[in-house]
Amino acid sequence: MSDVDTTTATPDDRAAAAAARDLGRIVGEAHVQAPVTQSELLQDATETRGLRGSALAAVHPGSAEETAAVVRWAAEQGVPVVPRGGGTGYSGGAVPGMGPEGANALVLATDRLTGPGEIVPEAWRGTFPAGVTTHDLQRRCLEAGLFFGPNPGSAEACFIGGNVATNAGGPRSFRHGSVRAWVSGLEAVLADGQLVRLGGNARKSVETLDLVGLLCGSEGTLGVITEVTLRLQPAPEAALPVLAVYADREAGLNALAYAMASGVVPTALEFLDGGALRAAAATFPGGLPDGAAFAVMAEALGTEEIARIEADALAEAISEDALRVLRPTTRSEVDEIWRWRDGVSLSVVAARGGKLSEDVVVPADRLGDALSAIDRLGEERGVEVTSWGHAGDGILHATVMVDRDDPEALRAATDAAHGMLDIAFDLGGALSGEHGIGLVKRDATTRLDPGVLAAQQAVKDALDPKGIMNPGRKLPPR
Amino acid sequence: MSDVDTTTATPDDRAAAAAARDLGRIVGEAHVQAPVTQSELLQDATETRGLRGSALAAVHPGSAEETAAVVRWAAEQGVPVVPRGGGTGYSGGAVPGMGPEGANALVLATDRLTGPGEIVPEAWRGTFPAGVTTHDLQRRCLEAGLFFGPNPGSAEACFIGGNVATNAGGPRSFRHGSVRAWVSGLEAVLADGQLVRLGGNARKSVETLDLVGLLCGSEGTLGVITEVTLRLQPAPEAALPVLAVYADREAGLNALAYAMASGVVPTALEFLDGGALRAAAATFPGGLPDGAAFAVMAEALGTEEIARIEADALAEAISEDALRVLRPTTRSEVDEIWRWRDGVSLSVVAARGGKLSEDVVVPADRLGDALSAIDRLGEERGVEVTSWGHAGDGILHATVMVDRDDPEALRAATDAAHGMLDIAFDLGGALSGEHGIGLVKRDATTRLDPGVLAAQQAVKDALDPKGIMNPGRKLPPR
Repeated sequence: MSDVDTTTATPDDRAAAAAARDLGRIVGEAHVQAPVTQSELLQDATETRGLRGSALAAVHPGSAEETAAVVRWAAEQGVPVVPRGGGTGYSGGAVPGMGPEGANALVLATDRLTGPGEIVPEAWRGTFPAGVTTHDLQRRCLEAGLFFGPNPGSAEACFIGGNVATNAGGPRSFRHGSVRAWVSGLEAVLADGQLVRLGGNARKSVETLDLVGLLCGSEGTLGVITEVTLRLQPAPEAALPVLAVYADREAGLNALAYAMASGVVPTALEFLDGGALRAAAATFPGGLPDGAAFAVMAEALGTEEIARIEADALAEAISEDALRVLRPTTRSEVDEIWRWRDGVSLSVVAARGGKLSEDVVVPADRLGDALSAIDRLGEERGVEVTSWGHAGDGILHATVMVDRDDPEALRAATDAAHGMLDIAFDLGGALSGEHGIGLVKRDATTRLDPGVLAAQQAVKDALDPKGIMNPGRKLPPR
Repeated sequence: MSDVDTTTATPDDRAAAAAARDLGRIVGEAHVQAPVTQSELLQDATETRGLRGSALAAVHPGSAEETAAVVRWAAEQGVPVVPRGGGTGYSGGAVPGMGPEGANALVLATDRLTGPGEIVPEAWRGTFPAGVTTHDLQRRCLEAGLFFGPNPGSAEACFIGGNVATNAGGPRSFRHGSVRAWVSGLEAVLADGQLVRLGGNARKSVETLDLVGLLCGSEGTLGVITEVTLRLQPAPEAALPVLAVYADREAGLNALAYAMASGVVPTALEFLDGGALRAAAATFPGGLPDGAAFAVMAEALGTEEIARIEADALAEAISEDALRVLRPTTRSEVDEIWRWRDGVSLSVVAARGGKLSEDVVVPADRLGDALSAIDRLGEERGVEVTSWGHAGDGILHATVMVDRDDPEALRAATDAAHGMLDIAFDLGGALSGEHGIGLVKRDATTRLDPGVLAAQQAVKDALDPKGIMNPGRKLPPR
């Protein structure tokens, strides 16, 4: 059913009681649970993988200093630490008890690292505790006339600390870059329990090796992020999506090429192939045209005037051969189209009762090749496949639709999902575009260049010599 | 005269002869010099620090494979490697024989790692050998309808490999980010002589820890970059600068605040204070108005239409209280204004015969405080100070003007230049905004957080356990 051993280990009651006592002294008794066998803290959003773990204890420190004290305790005790943000990951990175740590892990939840943060509008800067949700952060920025570019799909629930730990993306990363591009400074607890400030309030500096960048996307394997300083931009006045549907994939791929050649850098350049489009047909704004087999969605963002000019250019680029073009302008129309786009994943689940998705990425010029290869894979394996994602960045949410109550179908679907990784690899892409490696893809990373893996392992061992930070995630098994 | 011991060691003739023989077998005799005591390979652009080194040998490999073989040889022999790009650095990072390696260093010049590279216009991607100059790369991109955003001042001479190794910036980094933001993949030789590919052709991935980012800005201390894959953007049709001069600093700082509040993200937002402006008065386009004491320069870049709209908004923002506003529109007018801006540094040298500059950075909201503190420093020390730089990013080229033939004045200037670092540090900034640490600032890095320095050293030791890659640069003395 998945690559991961889903046997849940049982935490030792005496060890849990001892942990509860020690950790209670650090964070207060009310903020420790031990042991943890039934809790939302034991899973993330990898629901289709069925991952649910167990933990010796879960601890909710209320400050960076408490976080450091907890990690120091774990380092002394040799207890593995599984840092946790909003729990919206798709890779099992924050699911405790599933990795080599067995039942012995400590969930370090950052949900009490909240507070107003600090925004300095005149310097386009904001500093936020790690446990602030991305949506809250975006709202606070907008209220100060500023803007945080990345928009991961789970913004309502995910935390800025987790966004940094996974170097999160989302549709707007095409123009705005991933979260890394917006981070100038971090406060983090390293594996020895030391609280450090990396980078800072200056928008750019070259004072040390790029330790800020190293923490970004490290998926909890190098430390726990407690505070984030962001270089923001002025809030845009308007965000104007343009959506076009086509009768066949070729027309859609041509439209993507025209958009790339339009001279505009759209904030987002998305695609949906036929299966995803049909699955989400019921909620398509205004009704999906007959014969629709591909969709392209672009977004222009900026002042009213510039967003309109760029949206016009994008609409012209993608309209040729389109069955229909949607150009929402009012706030409610714009919201409706994004709500539809954000709901595609659930619609695909609903179509057959389940799905297995691989978040892969290919060079943007190989998107058509990837879609053809995915089609062939579906035919060969006798499974229904579909894809959608961030065309400009070459990111595909490559999906097998499956009835999860049919064990045989599920087995075939799982095999086919593995094939998606081969396709990405063969086309010069990567195993994960934005969701990360976590637990669920770590076995696949063994196929990477041994020299690269050795360098990665050396860095991990240097910064976490005891191997207590999220062991068994991100890096391949030794 | 500087922080650095400028005693030049003398290479051992027998060791040099042995190196010449071994290295000649790898790269061909014509591409080795040994020993090296008189050559432009022994200095970089830190001319005002008077750094000139010596080396056991200089080697010019003609391919990535030859580069790897050279580093393997050095690792086996325990010979320190000083990688060299275009030699335009300001921090002594590529000057051999001045660090702890003594006379025993090998200069690894990347000037033969050239060739056409590969540009894929439809994917906005370009791959270039490390020895291609930034200017050449920019030209090749433009010919393919694409654009590389960062524009370091030395683009005619610097190499893309060096741009990555220093995470170079320049005026346009305000909007476009530093070089790191444009790199999706690297080919590099690590300290053990292994040739690896980090990242790749996909614009975004989260497959491993961010080893690409770690190499960016590592100043040759972790490996030698042999090839760079860039995520490019469509070539803009127009780049429109707007320049305004003011009778006092306060008016100029207000103009910067208005620009930041204009809703536009200019590609560049520069400042020059009175001393720099007066030093460069002779070449100011159209003549500098009487009483000019501060200048602000912004740039809008994009399609003709959008660049004009944004330039209009920026001009409106910075025109209040200006003595004069320049809005060049023709190509030759635009070139003239940038030529003037790029020449400021030399003009400041010419004014008194010499200068000592510190490239520091402060949070953007502290720029005015930094300028006041620099004024006070000048008064206290009895030296003439001035600054210019990238206001949006808070980067100051903080400068003491000095007659280099007057030993006493030079000593006072050197002390005052050190004070610039204190100012940056006190204001929550960093020791280097973009020029790097190299040799000349490594002593100053000892004041950074010991926890951060320990983490940095652990990463360095992990990736270069023998310590042969550019020893004595970037990281503080142990």
